[in-house]
Amino acid sequence: MALDRKDLQEFARRERGAFESLLAEFVEVPSVSADPERKRDVERIAELGAATLRRFGATADIHRVPGGPPLVLGAFGSEPGRPTVTVYNHLDVQPASKETEPWRTEPFEFTVEGDTYRGRGTTDDKGPALTALYGAKAALDAGVPVNIRFLWETEEEVGSPHFAETLAKIGAPAATDAVVVSDTVWVSRQRPALSTGLRGLQRFHFHLETAETDQHSGSTGGAARNPVAELCQLASEIFDARTGRVKIPGFYDDVARPTKQELADFKASGFSVKAFMKEYGFRSIRTKDPMEIMKRLWALPTFEVHGLVGGYQGPGVKTIVPPRAELKATVRMVPDMKAEKLIRLVKAFVKKHAPDVRVEAGSSAAPYKGHTSGPYIEAAQRAVKFAFGKDPVFVRQGGTIGAVLSMEQILKVPIAFMGLSLPEHGYHAPNENYDWGQASGGMVAFAKYFEEVAALPSGRAGRKK
Amino acid sequence: MALDRKDLQEFARRERGAFESLLAEFVEVPSVSADPERKRDVERIAELGAATLRRFGATADIHRVPGGPPLVLGAFGSEPGRPTVTVYNHLDVQPASKETEPWRTEPFEFTVEGDTYRGRGTTDDKGPALTALYGAKAALDAGVPVNIRFLWETEEEVGSPHFAETLAKIGAPAATDAVVVSDTVWVSRQRPALSTGLRGLQRFHFHLETAETDQHSGSTGGAARNPVAELCQLASEIFDARTGRVKIPGFYDDVARPTKQELADFKASGFSVKAFMKEYGFRSIRTKDPMEIMKRLWALPTFEVHGLVGGYQGPGVKTIVPPRAELKATVRMVPDMKAEKLIRLVKAFVKKHAPDVRVEAGSSAAPYKGHTSGPYIEAAQRAVKFAFGKDPVFVRQGGTIGAVLSMEQILKVPIAFMGLSLPEHGYHAPNENYDWGQASGGMVAFAKYFEEVAALPSGRAGRKK
Repeated sequence: MALDRKDLQEFARRERGAFESLLAEFVEVPSVSADPERKRDVERIAELGAATLRRFGATADIHRVPGGPPLVLGAFGSEPGRPTVTVYNHLDVQPASKETEPWRTEPFEFTVEGDTYRGRGTTDDKGPALTALYGAKAALDAGVPVNIRFLWETEEEVGSPHFAETLAKIGAPAATDAVVVSDTVWVSRQRPALSTGLRGLQRFHFHLETAETDQHSGSTGGAARNPVAELCQLASEIFDARTGRVKIPGFYDDVARPTKQELADFKASGFSVKAFMKEYGFRSIRTKDPMEIMKRLWALPTFEVHGLVGGYQGPGVKTIVPPRAELKATVRMVPDMKAEKLIRLVKAFVKKHAPDVRVEAGSSAAPYKGHTSGPYIEAAQRAVKFAFGKDPVFVRQGGTIGAVLSMEQILKVPIAFMGLSLPEHGYHAPNENYDWGQASGGMVAFAKYFEEVAALPSGRAGRKK
Repeated sequence: MALDRKDLQEFARRERGAFESLLAEFVEVPSVSADPERKRDVERIAELGAATLRRFGATADIHRVPGGPPLVLGAFGSEPGRPTVTVYNHLDVQPASKETEPWRTEPFEFTVEGDTYRGRGTTDDKGPALTALYGAKAALDAGVPVNIRFLWETEEEVGSPHFAETLAKIGAPAATDAVVVSDTVWVSRQRPALSTGLRGLQRFHFHLETAETDQHSGSTGGAARNPVAELCQLASEIFDARTGRVKIPGFYDDVARPTKQELADFKASGFSVKAFMKEYGFRSIRTKDPMEIMKRLWALPTFEVHGLVGGYQGPGVKTIVPPRAELKATVRMVPDMKAEKLIRLVKAFVKKHAPDVRVEAGSSAAPYKGHTSGPYIEAAQRAVKFAFGKDPVFVRQGGTIGAVLSMEQILKVPIAFMGLSLPEHGYHAPNENYDWGQASGGMVAFAKYFEEVAALPSGRAGRKK
């Protein structure tokens, strides 16, 4: 009674219309967790998530801690003796604006063009979430003996500051034998990839205020301090923007070198400089050496500047001296960097070079070093090969999922990564998209994964019932 | 039959209501020359200007060159044998936005609070323009034998790129014996000031584009170039933002040192560091030495950064690598700096340090070195003392009026500066304002100035008729 690939593909074809309608419903809720004005939409996406899970036959609850956003937990089956597996996705999205970014369609309108689905959240992470849900439906409809949980969070894009506390509060209903995270990106469409590590993220805001309002740059320029320019200078003291090299003493001290096996996996990953540049639309990059690029993406930390707020942003020039500025930056951390030490180093550096700049350390997510073996990871390997016809490679992921470390620590179970996104899908970029090839393949992969997991001995979640 | 101060003050009191209504009409046309979307409003302000001049009894024409904005020339009287004097003001204004700046009122709504008039353009330069117009009315109503011209331009805030050509095209109707410019700022309300020099202005835009769209800073960060950060670095290579010192070789080579007399005038100007900081709302400035500040404001050039466009400007953090950025900057030039040489130096510097940054040199206005003696300047001195009760001091002006040099070169007549604005009026700042004290005093001063000028021998404008 093993699942048949053709049957699963037929299931996906049959469900395609329903899947697209559902994804449209999800994408059209602008659940931007970074924007306080979208708080209501973040609530709405959680309600839609819970309602959808119930419609698919699950029980679903919304959990939260005081001041925190909703966390949706859905449960299909609670049969003792059966393994329980939890699928993690997030339903919040990055900001998007057609006014300031080159979106060809409305970011919060779902559009279909051939096999391509466009809209903010299609690939990060609403599309993969619903793909996994359809995979679960296929497996359960076929009678696969497994308990499935869906854990859908709504603050991943702001670093999951309440996730650990909320998950810990749920307690027993969240118990599981394994977690599979579907929020990662392949190296190329030609080669499925499973992730074995994530970079962490530490947010920083640097604030400087030297006056109350804009002032005339003729009447006051020369004597007036210029916070925009001073923060430019601080950024260039922190790191060399041309090479990316961070100049804060001690910054690289705790960086773990990748193992020989990892470097061999990087080499086998199918990474191509040309494809990387094309998929992400880069005209020039810092280096053209492929191994050096992979190391920089997956195994080295960065200091990145996301925007310098302040001064005049409109057409032409407004000849003012700005009164204040804010530099938005993040550090992508790698194992074994620790956020507390990083914050200490950054604050000490700023205190020395720019004593009246206020450093605000935002939420942080630790880097994650995962595994390349074990029954659940091997199940994912087999499932992906079954669905996409090729052995997946193990690579690390340059991005960050704050919740992963929390799940490992709280649930104490193995975590596998079964991502479905592609570089050209535009994670965090305008014209974000997802496609039916990855969605239908993903449904097959997830269904097969659930079947593979069903064959494993049930773990502590089963025992507890 | 000399004008009496009390009579002129009574005139001002009587006209106050009409003056305020007229200023409101002018302020409520958002004639922002930097904004292409306000082009229609720039046309409207010229039409309103011409109509107003006609209503006051002048003839008025709108002049322009192909592609250029309107330039209004109004004429009261053309009697041969009488001196002709031209008042210069501008009717365009700086950008203003209540959404991004701390305006307490709508910037393009005129509000009155006691003696204070608020709104963009109240002090720069619509208020002084209408003050001078009422001064002319007072003089002409009293039978002062003088021909008066009003030259109202509409692109001062973008560097007057078409002014010279338009003025040259007008020809004979623009001929005059002297120009008085009313677009400068006193050092403090306690001490009237006449300006003897202006800094010039050269606009620069630095552009860098390394990709097509935002990209995920996890998936691409480390390999991707970051144009916002690279332009930060370039800015900090161009100048030390903390001291203001420009590091481009040759930048200071042509700076003329102020004369002993000028330094003595600076010293006598009534400049106070405490008042300067209070009036402009500064919390800290680059130096507290008053003479050093005056030199930096009036006699030394600056490199100023007005804004760094690119990346994410919204709430929180968006973890992207931006694809492009634009640094908006200007250099305030002092005598004897030349724009062509400056542009050459800046381009060579950028080519060396950041070869793929594109430097766009915008419009420029040369620095201006004026006079402290001559019959028209002495007439202004006497008029200001008559109106405000104190001898004015000569100071230079940190700001720029591109048209001044053009008028000197084309009209070949002496130019005097009779400004009425105060530091606390907020030139180019939010909550820009003007006040009845300066307006009513200004009306008296201008009326007296016209009378003083009427007593001078008529010059070439008279002879030509």
